[in-house]
Amino acid sequence: MSKKNIALNRLSAIQNHISNQPQQTGPIDLARERENASFNVKHMNWLFWGGKEFAEALQDAYLIIQRDPDLYFPGGHPYDLTRPEEREVTMKQIFRYIQLKKSLKDPLLFKALGVAMGMYSESFNMKVYVNDSLDVLLCSFLRGLETTATYDRETDEFIIHSPTLTSTKIWIGMAGQTATHSIALCQTIIDGKKWGTNWFIVPLRDQKTGKLMSGVTAGDVGAKYGRNGIDNGWIQYSHVRVPRTNMMMKWAKVNKGGEYTTSANPAVSYSVLIGERLTVLTEAVGTCGQVLTIACRYGCVRRQGANEEQIMDYQSHYVRLMPCVAGIYVISIITRMIMSKWDGIMKLAQTSQEEFLSYLPDVHAISSGLKATISWWGCEVLERVRRSLGGYAYSSYNAIGGAIRDWGVVTTGGGDNFVLIQQTARYLLGSFKQVSHGKRVTGSVEFLNDIQQTLSSTKSNLSDERQLLNLDFTLEMYTWLCSKKINVLAASLDSSTSGEETAWNDNQVDLIKLGELYSYRYTLSEYIKGLKECSTNSEFKELIPILTKLGSLWAINLINDSLNLFLEEEYLNGEQVKIIKKFYLKLCKEIRKECIPLVDSWGFPDFILKAPLGKYDGDVYTAYLETLKAAPNCIGIPSYWEKYVKNF
Amino acid sequence: MSKKNIALNRLSAIQNHISNQPQQTGPIDLARERENASFNVKHMNWLFWGGKEFAEALQDAYLIIQRDPDLYFPGGHPYDLTRPEEREVTMKQIFRYIQLKKSLKDPLLFKALGVAMGMYSESFNMKVYVNDSLDVLLCSFLRGLETTATYDRETDEFIIHSPTLTSTKIWIGMAGQTATHSIALCQTIIDGKKWGTNWFIVPLRDQKTGKLMSGVTAGDVGAKYGRNGIDNGWIQYSHVRVPRTNMMMKWAKVNKGGEYTTSANPAVSYSVLIGERLTVLTEAVGTCGQVLTIACRYGCVRRQGANEEQIMDYQSHYVRLMPCVAGIYVISIITRMIMSKWDGIMKLAQTSQEEFLSYLPDVHAISSGLKATISWWGCEVLERVRRSLGGYAYSSYNAIGGAIRDWGVVTTGGGDNFVLIQQTARYLLGSFKQVSHGKRVTGSVEFLNDIQQTLSSTKSNLSDERQLLNLDFTLEMYTWLCSKKINVLAASLDSSTSGEETAWNDNQVDLIKLGELYSYRYTLSEYIKGLKECSTNSEFKELIPILTKLGSLWAINLINDSLNLFLEEEYLNGEQVKIIKKFYLKLCKEIRKECIPLVDSWGFPDFILKAPLGKYDGDVYTAYLETLKAAPNCIGIPSYWEKYVKNF
Repeated sequence: MSKKNIALNRLSAIQNHISNQPQQTGPIDLARERENASFNVKHMNWLFWGGKEFAEALQDAYLIIQRDPDLYFPGGHPYDLTRPEEREVTMKQIFRYIQLKKSLKDPLLFKALGVAMGMYSESFNMKVYVNDSLDVLLCSFLRGLETTATYDRETDEFIIHSPTLTSTKIWIGMAGQTATHSIALCQTIIDGKKWGTNWFIVPLRDQKTGKLMSGVTAGDVGAKYGRNGIDNGWIQYSHVRVPRTNMMMKWAKVNKGGEYTTSANPAVSYSVLIGERLTVLTEAVGTCGQVLTIACRYGCVRRQGANEEQIMDYQSHYVRLMPCVAGIYVISIITRMIMSKWDGIMKLAQTSQEEFLSYLPDVHAISSGLKATISWWGCEVLERVRRSLGGYAYSSYNAIGGAIRDWGVVTTGGGDNFVLIQQTARYLLGSFKQVSHGKRVTGSVEFLNDIQQTLSSTKSNLSDERQLLNLDFTLEMYTWLCSKKINVLAASLDSSTSGEETAWNDNQVDLIKLGELYSYRYTLSEYIKGLKECSTNSEFKELIPILTKLGSLWAINLINDSLNLFLEEEYLNGEQVKIIKKFYLKLCKEIRKECIPLVDSWGFPDFILKAPLGKYDGDVYTAYLETLKAAPNCIGIPSYWEKYVKNF
Repeated sequence: MSKKNIALNRLSAIQNHISNQPQQTGPIDLARERENASFNVKHMNWLFWGGKEFAEALQDAYLIIQRDPDLYFPGGHPYDLTRPEEREVTMKQIFRYIQLKKSLKDPLLFKALGVAMGMYSESFNMKVYVNDSLDVLLCSFLRGLETTATYDRETDEFIIHSPTLTSTKIWIGMAGQTATHSIALCQTIIDGKKWGTNWFIVPLRDQKTGKLMSGVTAGDVGAKYGRNGIDNGWIQYSHVRVPRTNMMMKWAKVNKGGEYTTSANPAVSYSVLIGERLTVLTEAVGTCGQVLTIACRYGCVRRQGANEEQIMDYQSHYVRLMPCVAGIYVISIITRMIMSKWDGIMKLAQTSQEEFLSYLPDVHAISSGLKATISWWGCEVLERVRRSLGGYAYSSYNAIGGAIRDWGVVTTGGGDNFVLIQQTARYLLGSFKQVSHGKRVTGSVEFLNDIQQTLSSTKSNLSDERQLLNLDFTLEMYTWLCSKKINVLAASLDSSTSGEETAWNDNQVDLIKLGELYSYRYTLSEYIKGLKECSTNSEFKELIPILTKLGSLWAINLINDSLNLFLEEEYLNGEQVKIIKKFYLKLCKEIRKECIPLVDSWGFPDFILKAPLGKYDGDVYTAYLETLKAAPNCIGIPSYWEKYVKNF
């Protein structure tokens, strides 16, 4: 090489090192972004986790996980584990977690540890969720293809039996390899008469040997799209005998003579599903919050384009991500409110069954609607994040792929979304009918009492973008749309001459839309209440301006997504739509300025995020390449070289 | 057990067996659905595969794969393989495939075998695609972070060098473990002067030993979201010397003295990327066609609801799937047209560079736009299919999870969609400017010549749903929208006072939308031409009615997705929107009747689909449970029982 060339090469190398923007500017960029906070990040963190006390317990819990070799993933993540390895690790984590229950004296810390572990590992989360004490196992109910529990008076036992191939229960968490007991929802038969479904505890495996009990056939479902750390399985019962008292007799009872006492309302036994559905909200906040943290940090570190701009400054980038950030705030705040309401209702079950039952239909509709709507929303958030990470999203080490896979089951499991959202629509139409008959309705459908007045307005009075910052104004707009949709659908169903079911089916697409509108409307109306609560707290009061802005973005995003519906009913005209679209872009741009403080406030530590691209300090590329180099067999000759490559 | 109970139990079992709808009715259901075909399925299959000859070669290829133990996945699918196992299998398949190249005398059959194997294994597809002869390896170009090739006159060599951490090339197919050579796009430097980028062949590994060549650092990227059968890797070159002639001198040349002859147009060297982008269309047809086959069959077999209806009869079900089925037809037909056009243009490169170059901008815009639009469309199709399979989608054995994972990279790799679609938008605005200056434009933007006339109409004359069946009518509507969007955006960009780049960014969301509108418009206009070609063929002529209906559904679906844009410009009013929505539902319902013959026509055999739920014969539940039972360790005691479960 000529001296000149050597010199030029060196200069070029130095020049490249200097101009090596992402590596050098990442930490500086994030530090600068952090200065943009208009609010106190620590206070926001407390609010996000329901108060200072729990937020601090969570910090302790994070430390415990990082320092405990049984809780911490070997190598920091599960992405290189095989299925059996991942299961073993998950089981180890659960085992350790149960041990810690005894040694950690502080129940709040133990609770925080559960929350932290749940965010750290989705398989852990699911396994612990389905199985608090780890010696029983919940089965899901398959309608129409039922397992039977037939009472045998002579021995005072129930005989549990799955009669057909298709009554085989599939997908039961931990049934594949781990569970020692199952809780099966069975059709209860006494003297040939069907008494409806009840839950029965049925032993599955011998705890000492792990072998299946006589009469039980069970197996693992094998490879899944996600959550491979948990052993979903299938079960077939062949005339398995259990003592009569293995029937869970909280609501219905069977005495020794085989006398069946019906529960006041058969719906009661499904109430456990309501709580299960509501957990989707918490999961959405945890999962989507984590990946949005990664996406926002990467978006502010990554530079691209002629002027090497932060990609977060591109309109198409922040417009896709900011409404999602706002959504996390809205959902987290209303989730706490809904959960506490539900806890109150569950307590009523012990004291006043009648009052308890009076609340059920509304909570059922809310939980079904939100489960469907927010789990679909989660899919959209995850996909937006995936696209925002560019090619890096394809690397398992940046967490988004795993998050998408783990999320997959949420829309179809625990009640398929399409089924649930129609139940919600049915409830709405029923409530509307009551209102039409002059009755007043309460709960989430209270707005229907004013439907006549709401719909007496046929054109929006929107004329200035500033109106859109007012949460009551946007709620009113969205309420109008929701009311209109109910009204139109009720008329369409009523006027149909083709029978109730056909009419329903002919309007199904719109009915599903209605369920979504109602659910989203509910998030907005509850959020407004939540803000009022915040404003009574001295630490959180100062957060109201940014929280209001986030709520407005959420509201305008909802309206923006439904413009065709507003326009179709000619409630909005072309000019008004332009006002909305313009303001929507403007508000996204404004929130973008604070996106880093906004995601920092959630406080997910790097080890929970498990993504070099989302590192708090912004030094993402070095971290990513280090992660690659730590992968098994990163540099090495593969087994197939001798057999194939060599012989080409 | 009392005799009475035994008898009742048996009766119940028998009753359950008899009422066991899905198992028994599946085959009957599909047989009945097959009777609904209004067209000749075999002829449709020929059309779909570009003619009888190739369709028949494909049948032979399918047989070869099924009978060849080196091509066939052990156990029929790759879902239980670990990453090293999957890679070994993929390599075995490729090795065998290359062997067959010599022994199969029929080039058409070999081509068909490549197509069939590509559909059978996405990793195979990718590996063979990036690497036809398997001794070279393509690197992707990372703009702004370049590897340099510095000419050393003394030794007549180029010195290849990656100067920084962030110039490390990541994601290169087969670079992780397999490739012996790389083709790197490098900044060419001669005597300190940069001459632009060229492709260079750089040896990576010793073929005999598999060891990295001196100066090359390369490693595997480890776990990926999908396509784990292919070893993507990263490469760093440290002053690697290669002979001057390792520069690929198709366009630019460097002679022994270091004299650089510039190619006529630097864009030429990217023309290889155009072909790459267009392959997304073929992949969309293959991948989405397969999962839609599964979804349609399962949808017609699965029964649910009070009357145990086929779930495909639910409005929300067929409305989500039928436009996707129509899309496969549209895309497959236009893909063949576009590919053949592109082949023609590529031939011009040999004979008339000038003419070749004159076609490039338009093809570049089309390929970029379609790559982005159709790969996003594919994401939507896959997600719809996933949801339509309910809980079963979560099982890897039903193929959809793997398809989603494999598809993941398509939107972000090979040119990020957001970047590509903006290039398309830029081309459109440039063409519009030319038209404004009185010039005529040709190619895909020809419709812009009439933009004044198009936009002189400000209201749609839609008054009857029958107008919507006419493809020219819907194309006209969509052309109006596309023209309007260009017009509005050009004005917005022109009127901006904030500088060109800021103006672009402030309109970015709309510019991306414009790119999509143009691309979708192109699919429709080409499809109309495709139908005209079909009508000249005696075998395909009879297919025109159903193909027209499919085209109409595609068109109305496009319009339906853009209602807010039409309404915002007040081109459509509320009443017209209601006509469109109603007709859209109606057309979906009509296509639904033939959905099984429509997917059958694509001719994907069961072993290619790799999903028990999509079995041709409709006996899906038995097949599914058998698949589960064949999973490794389906029934057995896990390693962690002794350590953990026993000690609870």
